[in-house]
Amino acid sequence: MTHTPHRRGADRTEAIMRTTLELGQEIGYAKLSIEAVAARAGAGKHTIYRRWSSKGALLLDSLLSLNEPGLDYPNSGDIVADLRAQIYTAVDLLARPPFGPLFQALIGEAQHDPQVAAALNERFITPQADKTVARLKAARDQGQLSSGFDLDLAMAILSGPLYFQLLITQEPLTHEYVDRILHALFAGMGPQPQP
Amino acid sequence: MTHTPHRRGADRTEAIMRTTLELGQEIGYAKLSIEAVAARAGAGKHTIYRRWSSKGALLLDSLLSLNEPGLDYPNSGDIVADLRAQIYTAVDLLARPPFGPLFQALIGEAQHDPQVAAALNERFITPQADKTVARLKAARDQGQLSSGFDLDLAMAILSGPLYFQLLITQEPLTHEYVDRILHALFAGMGPQPQP
Repeated sequence: MTHTPHRRGADRTEAIMRTTLELGQEIGYAKLSIEAVAARAGAGKHTIYRRWSSKGALLLDSLLSLNEPGLDYPNSGDIVADLRAQIYTAVDLLARPPFGPLFQALIGEAQHDPQVAAALNERFITPQADKTVARLKAARDQGQLSSGFDLDLAMAILSGPLYFQLLITQEPLTHEYVDRILHALFAGMGPQPQP
Repeated sequence: MTHTPHRRGADRTEAIMRTTLELGQEIGYAKLSIEAVAARAGAGKHTIYRRWSSKGALLLDSLLSLNEPGLDYPNSGDIVADLRAQIYTAVDLLARPPFGPLFQALIGEAQHDPQVAAALNERFITPQADKTVARLKAARDQGQLSSGFDLDLAMAILSGPLYFQLLITQEPLTHEYVDRILHALFAGMGPQPQP
Protein backbone atom coordinates (compact mmCIF):
# COMPACT_ATOMS: atom_id res chain seq x y z
CA MET A 1 0.00 0.00 0.00
CA THR A 2 1.43 3.37 -1.02
CA HIS A 3 1.10 6.53 1.02
CA THR A 4 -0.51 9.49 -0.65
CA PRO A 5 -0.23 13.03 0.70
CA HIS A 6 -4.02 13.45 0.83
CA ARG A 7 -5.87 10.64 2.50
CA ARG A 8 -9.12 9.61 0.96
CA GLY A 9 -12.26 10.41 2.99
CA ALA A 10 -12.88 6.92 4.33
CA ASP A 11 -9.26 6.50 5.42
CA ARG A 12 -9.30 9.88 7.12
CA THR A 13 -12.57 9.12 8.91
CA GLU A 14 -11.13 5.85 10.13
CA ALA A 15 -7.93 7.53 11.31
CA ILE A 16 -9.90 10.15 13.25
CA MET A 17 -12.01 7.52 15.01
CA ARG A 18 -8.99 5.37 15.83
CA THR A 19 -7.21 8.42 17.25
CA THR A 20 -10.29 9.30 19.31
CA LEU A 21 -10.24 5.87 20.98
CA GLU A 22 -6.47 5.92 21.56
CA LEU A 23 -6.53 9.39 23.07
CA GLY A 24 -9.69 8.67 25.06
CA GLN A 25 -8.06 5.64 26.65
CA GLU A 26 -4.94 7.64 27.44
CA ILE A 27 -6.45 10.79 28.95
CA GLY A 28 -10.08 9.88 29.69
CA TYR A 29 -13.32 11.33 28.39
CA ALA A 30 -13.27 14.49 30.51
CA LYS A 31 -9.98 15.70 29.00
CA LEU A 32 -10.70 14.52 25.46
CA SER A 33 -11.32 17.33 22.97
CA ILE A 34 -11.95 17.56 19.25
CA GLU A 35 -8.95 19.91 19.00
CA ALA A 36 -6.65 17.29 20.56
CA VAL A 37 -7.98 14.56 18.28
CA ALA A 38 -7.51 16.81 15.24
CA ALA A 39 -3.92 17.62 16.21
CA ARG A 40 -2.91 14.01 16.74
CA ALA A 41 -4.74 12.69 13.68
CA GLY A 42 -3.28 15.42 11.49
CA ALA A 43 -6.75 16.56 10.46
CA GLY A 44 -8.37 19.98 10.51
CA LYS A 45 -10.81 20.44 13.37
CA HIS A 46 -13.41 21.74 10.89
CA THR A 47 -13.13 18.43 9.05
CA ILE A 48 -14.16 16.72 12.28
CA TYR A 49 -16.94 19.18 13.12
CA ARG A 50 -18.40 18.77 9.64
CA ARG A 51 -19.11 15.13 10.44
CA TRP A 52 -19.56 15.14 14.23
CA SER A 53 -21.30 17.90 16.13
CA SER A 54 -19.66 17.13 19.48
CA LYS A 55 -16.96 15.01 21.06
CA GLY A 56 -19.74 12.78 22.43
CA ALA A 57 -21.01 12.04 18.92
CA LEU A 58 -17.45 11.42 17.72
CA LEU A 59 -16.63 9.06 20.59
CA LEU A 60 -19.88 7.15 20.14
CA ASP A 61 -19.24 6.57 16.43
CA SER A 62 -15.64 5.62 17.21
CA LEU A 63 -16.81 2.99 19.69
CA LEU A 64 -19.43 1.64 17.31
CA SER A 65 -16.88 1.48 14.48
CA LEU A 66 -15.08 -1.24 16.45
CA ASN A 67 -17.90 -3.56 15.47
CA GLU A 68 -18.55 -2.97 11.80
CA PRO A 69 -21.57 -5.29 11.47
CA GLY A 70 -23.29 -2.93 13.91
CA LEU A 71 -24.17 -5.39 16.65
CA ASP A 72 -26.55 -7.40 14.50
CA TYR A 73 -28.47 -10.35 15.89
CA PRO A 74 -27.74 -13.77 14.44
CA ASN A 75 -30.77 -15.85 13.48
CA SER A 76 -30.03 -19.46 14.30
CA GLY A 77 -33.68 -20.22 15.07
CA ASP A 78 -33.01 -20.20 18.84
CA ILE A 79 -34.00 -16.79 20.22
CA VAL A 80 -32.30 -17.12 23.62
CA ALA A 81 -29.03 -18.28 22.05
CA ASP A 82 -29.16 -15.42 19.54
CA LEU A 83 -29.91 -12.75 22.14
CA ARG A 84 -27.11 -14.16 24.28
CA ALA A 85 -24.59 -14.02 21.42
CA GLN A 86 -25.48 -10.45 20.52
CA ILE A 87 -25.49 -9.25 24.13
CA TYR A 88 -22.10 -10.89 24.78
CA THR A 89 -20.67 -8.94 21.84
CA ALA A 90 -22.28 -5.65 22.93
CA VAL A 91 -21.19 -6.06 26.55
CA ASP A 92 -17.63 -7.05 25.65
CA LEU A 93 -17.35 -4.00 23.42
CA LEU A 94 -19.14 -1.30 25.44
CA ALA A 95 -19.34 -2.41 29.05
CA ARG A 96 -15.93 -3.91 29.79
CA PRO A 97 -12.33 -2.68 29.56
CA PRO A 98 -10.70 -1.32 27.49
CA PHE A 99 -13.61 0.67 26.02
CA GLY A 100 -16.28 0.26 28.73
CA PRO A 101 -15.02 3.21 30.82
CA LEU A 102 -15.33 5.51 27.79
CA PHE A 103 -18.90 4.38 27.05
CA GLN A 104 -19.76 4.79 30.73
CA ALA A 105 -18.33 8.32 30.78
CA LEU A 106 -20.28 9.11 27.61
CA ILE A 107 -23.55 8.12 29.27
CA GLY A 108 -22.54 10.17 32.30
CA GLU A 109 -22.10 13.16 29.98
CA ALA A 110 -25.51 12.48 28.41
CA GLN A 111 -27.05 13.34 31.79
CA HIS A 112 -25.72 16.90 31.51
CA ASP A 113 -25.62 17.43 27.74
CA PRO A 114 -28.80 16.96 25.66
CA GLN A 115 -26.74 16.86 22.44
CA VAL A 116 -24.82 13.81 23.66
CA ALA A 117 -28.06 12.18 24.81
CA ALA A 118 -29.60 12.78 21.38
CA ALA A 119 -26.55 11.36 19.57
CA LEU A 120 -26.58 8.28 21.80
CA ASN A 121 -30.21 7.61 20.97
CA GLU A 122 -30.00 8.43 17.29
CA ARG A 123 -26.75 6.60 16.53
CA PHE A 124 -27.09 3.61 18.85
CA ILE A 125 -30.22 3.07 20.94
CA THR A 126 -32.89 3.53 18.27
CA PRO A 127 -31.17 1.37 15.61
CA GLN A 128 -30.48 -1.33 18.23
CA ALA A 129 -34.09 -1.23 19.43
CA ASP A 130 -35.27 -1.67 15.83
CA LYS A 131 -33.00 -4.69 15.35
CA THR A 132 -34.09 -6.17 18.67
CA VAL A 133 -37.77 -5.84 17.81
CA ALA A 134 -37.23 -7.37 14.36
CA ARG A 135 -35.42 -10.39 15.82
CA LEU A 136 -38.07 -10.84 18.53
CA LYS A 137 -40.88 -10.62 15.98
CA ALA A 138 -39.30 -13.48 14.03
CA ALA A 139 -39.08 -15.45 17.30
CA ARG A 140 -42.73 -14.76 18.04
CA ASP A 141 -43.70 -16.07 14.60
CA GLN A 142 -41.83 -19.27 15.48
CA GLY A 143 -43.60 -19.59 18.84
CA GLN A 144 -40.44 -18.86 20.84
CA LEU A 145 -41.77 -15.71 22.48
CA SER A 146 -44.83 -14.98 24.60
CA SER A 147 -47.51 -13.88 22.12
CA GLY A 148 -48.51 -11.08 24.53
CA PHE A 149 -45.02 -9.68 25.02
CA ASP A 150 -44.93 -5.89 24.57
CA LEU A 151 -42.25 -5.49 21.89
CA ASP A 152 -41.99 -1.74 22.49
CA LEU A 153 -40.50 -2.56 25.88
CA ALA A 154 -37.98 -5.10 24.57
CA MET A 155 -34.96 -2.79 24.60
CA ALA A 156 -35.71 -1.46 28.10
CA ILE A 157 -36.33 -4.90 29.57
CA LEU A 158 -33.38 -6.64 27.93
CA SER A 159 -30.78 -3.91 28.31
CA GLY A 160 -32.09 -2.12 31.43
CA PRO A 161 -30.56 -4.67 33.84
CA LEU A 162 -27.25 -4.38 31.98
CA TYR A 163 -27.19 -0.59 32.21
CA PHE A 164 -28.12 -0.94 35.89
CA GLN A 165 -24.98 -3.02 36.43
CA LEU A 166 -22.80 -0.68 34.32
CA LEU A 167 -24.03 2.65 35.70
CA ILE A 168 -25.47 2.02 39.17
CA THR A 169 -23.81 -0.89 40.96
CA GLN A 170 -20.78 -0.56 38.65
CA GLU A 171 -19.91 -4.21 39.14
CA PRO A 172 -18.28 -6.22 36.32
CA LEU A 173 -20.69 -7.15 33.55
CA THR A 174 -19.85 -10.82 33.02
CA HIS A 175 -21.29 -13.33 30.55
CA GLU A 176 -22.60 -15.26 33.55
CA TYR A 177 -24.62 -12.20 34.62
CA VAL A 178 -26.04 -11.92 31.08
CA ASP A 179 -27.05 -15.60 31.18
CA ARG A 180 -28.82 -15.22 34.53
CA ILE A 181 -30.70 -12.12 33.37
CA LEU A 182 -31.87 -13.81 30.15
CA HIS A 183 -32.99 -16.89 32.06
CA ALA A 184 -34.96 -14.79 34.57
CA LEU A 185 -36.58 -12.61 31.88
CA PHE A 186 -37.73 -15.55 29.80
CA ALA A 187 -39.09 -17.47 32.80
CA GLY A 188 -40.89 -14.38 34.16
CA MET A 189 -41.43 -13.37 37.77
CA GLY A 190 -44.98 -14.69 38.05
CA PRO A 191 -45.80 -18.09 39.56
CA GLN A 192 -45.51 -20.95 37.08
CA PRO A 193 -48.77 -22.71 36.30
CA GLN A 194 -49.01 -26.19 37.82
CA PRO A 195 -48.61 -28.97 35.24
CA MET B 1 -42.14 26.96 68.78
CA THR B 2 -39.46 29.29 70.11
CA HIS B 3 -36.31 30.14 68.23
CA THR B 4 -33.02 29.43 69.95
CA PRO B 5 -29.74 30.91 68.78
CA HIS B 6 -28.19 27.46 68.37
CA ARG B 7 -30.29 25.06 66.37
CA ARG B 8 -30.40 21.53 67.66
CA GLY B 9 -28.63 18.92 65.52
CA ALA B 10 -31.73 17.41 63.92
CA ASP B 11 -33.15 20.83 63.00
CA ARG B 12 -29.84 21.89 61.56
CA THR B 13 -29.49 18.70 59.52
CA GLU B 14 -32.98 19.21 58.14
CA ALA B 15 -32.28 22.85 57.26
CA ILE B 16 -29.09 21.89 55.43
CA MET B 17 -30.87 19.22 53.37
CA ARG B 18 -33.78 21.55 52.56
CA THR B 19 -31.33 24.24 51.45
CA THR B 20 -29.45 21.71 49.30
CA LEU B 21 -32.64 20.88 47.40
CA GLU B 22 -33.68 24.52 47.02
CA LEU B 23 -30.28 25.59 45.77
CA GLY B 24 -29.92 22.50 43.57
CA GLN B 25 -33.21 23.29 41.85
CA GLU B 26 -32.19 26.93 41.37
CA ILE B 27 -28.67 26.52 40.01
CA GLY B 28 -28.40 22.86 39.02
CA TYR B 29 -26.14 20.09 40.23
CA ALA B 30 -23.02 21.21 38.36
CA LYS B 31 -22.94 24.59 40.12
CA LEU B 32 -24.03 23.30 43.52
CA SER B 33 -21.30 23.35 46.17
CA ILE B 34 -21.09 22.55 49.87
CA GLU B 35 -19.77 26.07 50.43
CA ALA B 36 -22.87 27.63 48.83
CA VAL B 37 -25.19 25.37 50.83
CA ALA B 38 -23.35 26.27 54.04
CA ALA B 39 -23.60 29.98 53.33
CA ARG B 40 -27.32 29.94 52.61
CA ALA B 41 -28.19 27.57 55.44
CA GLY B 42 -26.13 29.60 57.92
CA ALA B 43 -24.06 26.56 58.82
CA GLY B 44 -20.32 26.03 58.93
CA LYS B 45 -19.00 24.06 55.99
CA HIS B 46 -17.11 21.80 58.39
CA THR B 47 -20.44 20.94 60.01
CA ILE B 48 -21.60 19.69 56.61
CA TYR B 49 -18.37 17.85 55.80
CA ARG B 50 -18.50 16.05 59.17
CA ARG B 51 -21.70 14.37 58.06
CA TRP B 52 -21.38 14.22 54.28
CA SER B 53 -18.13 13.50 52.49
CA SER B 54 -19.19 15.09 49.19
CA LYS B 55 -21.94 17.16 47.61
CA GLY B 56 -23.15 13.98 45.94
CA ALA B 57 -23.67 12.28 49.30
CA LEU B 58 -25.39 15.42 50.65
CA LEU B 59 -27.73 15.70 47.67
CA LEU B 60 -28.60 12.02 47.80
CA ASP B 61 -29.53 12.18 51.49
CA SER B 62 -31.47 15.38 50.84
CA LEU B 63 -33.51 13.68 48.11
CA LEU B 64 -34.14 10.61 50.25
CA SER B 65 -35.20 12.79 53.20
CA LEU B 66 -38.24 13.84 51.15
CA ASN B 67 -39.63 10.39 51.79
CA GLU B 68 -39.06 9.68 55.46
CA PRO B 69 -40.39 6.10 55.45
CA GLY B 70 -37.49 5.36 53.09
CA LEU B 71 -39.43 4.00 50.14
CA ASP B 72 -40.75 0.98 52.02
CA TYR B 73 -42.91 -1.61 50.32
CA PRO B 74 -46.47 -2.02 51.55
CA ASN B 75 -47.61 -5.58 52.19
CA SER B 76 -51.23 -5.88 51.16
CA GLY B 77 -50.82 -9.52 50.15
CA ASP B 78 -50.80 -8.62 46.43
CA ILE B 79 -47.18 -8.45 45.24
CA VAL B 80 -47.83 -6.70 41.92
CA ALA B 81 -49.99 -4.03 43.57
CA ASP B 82 -47.37 -3.49 46.27
CA LEU B 83 -44.45 -3.23 43.83
CA ARG B 84 -46.53 -0.84 41.74
CA ALA B 85 -47.30 1.40 44.73
CA GLN B 86 -43.68 1.55 45.85
CA ILE B 87 -42.34 2.14 42.34
CA TYR B 88 -44.87 4.95 41.74
CA THR B 89 -43.58 6.67 44.89
CA ALA B 90 -39.93 6.18 43.96
CA VAL B 91 -40.45 7.35 40.39
CA ASP B 92 -42.50 10.39 41.40
CA LEU B 93 -39.79 11.39 43.85
CA LEU B 94 -36.59 10.62 41.94
CA ALA B 95 -37.38 10.37 38.25
CA ARG B 96 -39.80 13.23 37.59
CA PRO B 97 -39.70 16.99 38.09
CA PRO B 98 -39.02 18.82 40.34
CA PHE B 99 -36.34 16.51 41.80
CA GLY B 100 -35.79 14.05 38.93
CA PRO B 101 -33.25 16.26 37.13
CA LEU B 102 -31.11 16.43 40.29
CA PHE B 103 -31.16 12.64 40.75
CA GLN B 104 -30.32 12.21 37.06
CA ALA B 105 -27.38 14.62 37.36
CA LEU B 106 -26.21 12.76 40.47
CA ILE B 107 -26.08 9.48 38.57
CA GLY B 108 -24.28 11.25 35.74
CA GLU B 109 -21.69 12.40 38.30
CA ALA B 110 -21.40 8.83 39.62
CA GLN B 111 -19.93 7.85 36.23
CA HIS B 112 -16.96 10.15 36.85
CA ASP B 113 -16.68 10.14 40.65
CA PRO B 114 -16.29 6.82 42.50
CA GLN B 115 -17.18 8.52 45.82
CA VAL B 116 -20.59 9.54 44.49
CA ALA B 117 -21.11 6.05 43.05
CA ALA B 118 -20.26 4.52 46.43
CA ALA B 119 -22.62 6.86 48.30
CA LEU B 120 -25.42 6.09 45.86
CA ASN B 121 -25.01 2.37 46.43
CA GLU B 122 -24.49 2.54 50.18
CA ARG B 123 -27.24 5.04 50.98
CA PHE B 124 -29.88 4.01 48.43
CA ILE B 125 -29.34 1.04 46.13
CA THR B 126 -28.25 -1.57 48.69
CA PRO B 127 -30.96 -0.75 51.29
CA GLN B 128 -33.60 -0.70 48.52
CA ALA B 129 -32.37 -4.03 47.14
CA ASP B 130 -32.62 -5.54 50.63
CA LYS B 131 -36.20 -4.30 51.02
CA THR B 132 -37.11 -5.53 47.55
CA VAL B 133 -35.74 -9.01 48.22
CA ALA B 134 -37.55 -9.20 51.59
CA ARG B 135 -40.89 -8.25 50.01
CA LEU B 136 -40.39 -10.70 47.14
CA LYS B 137 -39.46 -13.51 49.54
CA ALA B 138 -42.77 -12.99 51.35
CA ALA B 139 -44.54 -13.12 48.00
CA ARG B 140 -42.75 -16.33 47.09
CA ASP B 141 -43.88 -17.89 50.37
CA GLN B 142 -47.43 -16.98 49.37
CA GLY B 143 -47.04 -18.53 45.92
CA GLN B 144 -47.19 -15.15 44.13
CA LEU B 145 -43.71 -15.39 42.66
CA SER B 146 -42.00 -17.93 40.45
CA SER B 147 -40.28 -20.34 42.85
CA GLY B 148 -37.22 -20.31 40.61
CA PHE B 149 -36.89 -16.52 40.39
CA ASP B 150 -33.34 -15.36 41.12
CA LEU B 151 -33.88 -12.87 43.95
CA ASP B 152 -30.35 -11.48 43.64
CA LEU B 153 -31.40 -10.06 40.28
CA ALA B 154 -34.64 -8.50 41.54
CA MET B 155 -33.35 -4.93 41.82
CA ALA B 156 -31.66 -5.01 38.40
CA ILE B 157 -34.68 -6.52 36.66
CA LEU B 158 -37.29 -4.32 38.32
CA SER B 159 -35.46 -1.00 38.28
CA GLY B 160 -33.20 -1.52 35.23
CA PRO B 161 -35.95 -0.64 32.72
CA LEU B 162 -36.76 2.48 34.77
CA TYR B 163 -33.15 3.67 34.82
CA PHE B 164 -33.01 2.93 31.08
CA GLN B 165 -35.90 5.36 30.55
CA LEU B 166 -34.43 7.97 32.94
CA LEU B 167 -30.82 7.87 31.74
CA ILE B 168 -30.80 6.56 28.17
CA THR B 169 -33.97 7.42 26.26
CA GLN B 170 -34.70 10.24 28.74
CA GLU B 171 -38.40 10.02 28.04
CA PRO B 172 -40.96 10.78 30.78
CA LEU B 173 -41.29 8.02 33.36
CA THR B 174 -45.05 7.69 33.66
CA HIS B 175 -47.16 5.41 35.86
CA GLU B 176 -48.44 3.80 32.67
CA TYR B 177 -44.86 2.86 31.73
CA VAL B 178 -44.36 1.33 35.19
CA ASP B 179 -47.56 -0.71 34.77
CA ARG B 180 -46.49 -2.04 31.39
CA ILE B 181 -43.03 -2.99 32.66
CA LEU B 182 -44.46 -4.86 35.67
CA HIS B 183 -46.96 -6.68 33.50
CA ALA B 184 -44.25 -7.77 31.05
CA LEU B 185 -41.82 -8.86 33.79
CA PHE B 186 -44.39 -10.98 35.60
CA ALA B 187 -45.65 -12.62 32.41
CA GLY B 188 -42.10 -13.32 31.18
CA MET B 189 -40.79 -13.28 27.63
CA GLY B 190 -40.96 -17.03 27.07
CA PRO B 191 -43.87 -18.72 25.27
CA GLN B 192 -46.80 -19.49 27.55
CA PRO B 193 -47.51 -23.18 28.03
CA GLN B 194 -50.64 -24.34 26.25
CA PRO B 195 -53.56 -24.98 28.61
